[in-house]
Amino acid sequence: MKIPFNKPYLTGKELVYIEDAVKKGKISGNGYYTQLCQDFFENKYGFHKCLLTTSCTDALEMAAILINIQEGDEVIMPSYTFVSTANAFVLRGAKIIFIDSRTDHPGLDEDKIEALITPKTKAIVSVHYAGVACDMDKIMDLAQQYNLFVIEDAAQAIDSFYTGKDGAQRPLGSIGHLSAFSFHETKNIISGEGGMLAINDSQFAERAEIIWEKGTNRSAFFRGEVDKYGWVDVGSSFLPSEIIAAFLWAQLENLDAIQQARVSHWEKYNRELQNWAAKNEIQLPVIPSYATNNGHIFYLVCKNLEQRIAIIEKLKSKNIISVFHYISLHSSSFYNQIHQERPLTESDRYSDCLLRLPMYYELDVLNIVKNLKNEY
Amino acid sequence: MKIPFNKPYLTGKELVYIEDAVKKGKISGNGYYTQLCQDFFENKYGFHKCLLTTSCTDALEMAAILINIQEGDEVIMPSYTFVSTANAFVLRGAKIIFIDSRTDHPGLDEDKIEALITPKTKAIVSVHYAGVACDMDKIMDLAQQYNLFVIEDAAQAIDSFYTGKDGAQRPLGSIGHLSAFSFHETKNIISGEGGMLAINDSQFAERAEIIWEKGTNRSAFFRGEVDKYGWVDVGSSFLPSEIIAAFLWAQLENLDAIQQARVSHWEKYNRELQNWAAKNEIQLPVIPSYATNNGHIFYLVCKNLEQRIAIIEKLKSKNIISVFHYISLHSSSFYNQIHQERPLTESDRYSDCLLRLPMYYELDVLNIVKNLKNEY
Repeated sequence: MKIPFNKPYLTGKELVYIEDAVKKGKISGNGYYTQLCQDFFENKYGFHKCLLTTSCTDALEMAAILINIQEGDEVIMPSYTFVSTANAFVLRGAKIIFIDSRTDHPGLDEDKIEALITPKTKAIVSVHYAGVACDMDKIMDLAQQYNLFVIEDAAQAIDSFYTGKDGAQRPLGSIGHLSAFSFHETKNIISGEGGMLAINDSQFAERAEIIWEKGTNRSAFFRGEVDKYGWVDVGSSFLPSEIIAAFLWAQLENLDAIQQARVSHWEKYNRELQNWAAKNEIQLPVIPSYATNNGHIFYLVCKNLEQRIAIIEKLKSKNIISVFHYISLHSSSFYNQIHQERPLTESDRYSDCLLRLPMYYELDVLNIVKNLKNEY
Repeated sequence: MKIPFNKPYLTGKELVYIEDAVKKGKISGNGYYTQLCQDFFENKYGFHKCLLTTSCTDALEMAAILINIQEGDEVIMPSYTFVSTANAFVLRGAKIIFIDSRTDHPGLDEDKIEALITPKTKAIVSVHYAGVACDMDKIMDLAQQYNLFVIEDAAQAIDSFYTGKDGAQRPLGSIGHLSAFSFHETKNIISGEGGMLAINDSQFAERAEIIWEKGTNRSAFFRGEVDKYGWVDVGSSFLPSEIIAAFLWAQLENLDAIQQARVSHWEKYNRELQNWAAKNEIQLPVIPSYATNNGHIFYLVCKNLEQRIAIIEKLKSKNIISVFHYISLHSSSFYNQIHQERPLTESDRYSDCLLRLPMYYELDVLNIVKNLKNEY
């Protein structure tokens, strides 16, 4: 039997709620289940305002519109990230300034940000790789000093936390001015495709709703705040169908159980592989003291590309699927001319050496560990 | 019992297919049901290539990216249309040149296009209002003469046709270089939110797929055409979840029955209201000889705003919901400064006077007609 890298987990209520949404006679966006999901996130994590989107990509695009990215603005983000992190800003005319990853984990190297800031810099995008927090105090301090916006790319970071200098533990996605989450089927909490914009800086709340509703003040109209609605701004159709929101709601009801299972799998991997990893010069995930682990990804950093290829093949021979992750965006065919020569060696190392082991709710970790140790 | 303006129709198989998609273990985009739906459209209507999107808005945005809209490019489109028609191009930096509607129906006045063409004009967007074809020969001839792109906004135009000078009947959406369809819950064929880009000019096919897949050549990779995939272009996450595609597939299987019911309702309205309309100086829909009717909207054009308000109120007193439609975009608070003074009197007339009567699969037309005649 094949062990996939990812297997979407169903709580059992998804189809029940979809059926209910359909019966309610409203399956376009911004209905009953959308509201339930948005309220859930606002209440549980203290985000100022949440808006479901059709993808995390769309949430990032909304962020780029909200901070008014113009042609030539510079946006600092890690090179070791998903293409959408960059595309959302490129679509608005930004130049992406790619930053290297840390030596101890694939997240951006906070200490290298300041040297990249210029008068054109408009924002920093803090991608919380594998749900592990960037050092947000450092990033927010720089943002304040240089008057920049901080967008948290929290695609992988649901239910993960950051403890700042003040000792307070804050949910990821609640710290930057705006944050984007993903509910893609590969994430902890899923709706097939799907995402959410969390708005923490209240100055953006009203306009976010307008942009979300295709550039109209329809939401304000339905609340009775204006007496007719019309075209007041740019915008798009960022809101997902109620079918998607109903699916998501079934997942959110089970968030704690899902998180518990995934974190437990992660800890089992981490415990069982310590000696094996050390023996093979493989780096296991590092969780800085200010961060938590949300069980999103369990990865190995192999000593080189050859080792990674060998492990992928060995596992594949046992019908276990392991996968690498991003290819550095700064070296892509689309952007290497613009990025020019500045080397990002850590990002390239993770591109070559990082390997993700299977991770999903119904997973037998010990079986994978056993095979891994037997084969390599 | 209240008679709504719209009631989403379910064929009964939607949840079955969603459950199947979930069981297939793949609920993100571009899977089994997405392919089924795309193949259906390509085969039934002869579109060169189809890509499902999360909305018609997104399909229009893809079109704007594909024709490479740049800051300052001009795009000609009717003022009497949905905001997304315009926003998709505004987001890429275009200046919208709004054109008036026809006297006999709300579609754009083809004879007024040429006077608006300048060296900056890049495209014409032909919105097929109520699924009734624009005179595409006139539009395509101008496009050829002035080297412009034609984007069909076929949001409402599924299963509707145009007969050209050559006598051939062509499906709407198959004539322009690119076309956008909607499956919003208010449309004939629905998936809650949803849309599709149809690519007729094959020069756009490869790049469309890349833009759809977040600016990566992932699709070509999975077909074995390239040996690795990466970031090669701008793009977004335009593809809908398989959950949405599965829902849509259930609808497409019943397209003929749905169309038959709606067209029959439409014809009944049209037959039963002729004398009443004439007596009250109300204009009924006009279908030009080159066009067909797809039963999407049955509308009245009232003699003035007061009459429209009165009819809405009278019907409401009988629990029947009728609704107006667009407000001219050229006079919106967002665009009136840019549009300046050029009057578009027909567009404004439809904004004030057009009224849509209830239209959905399970509709008792005669009951509405009876109430309408009794009350007004």
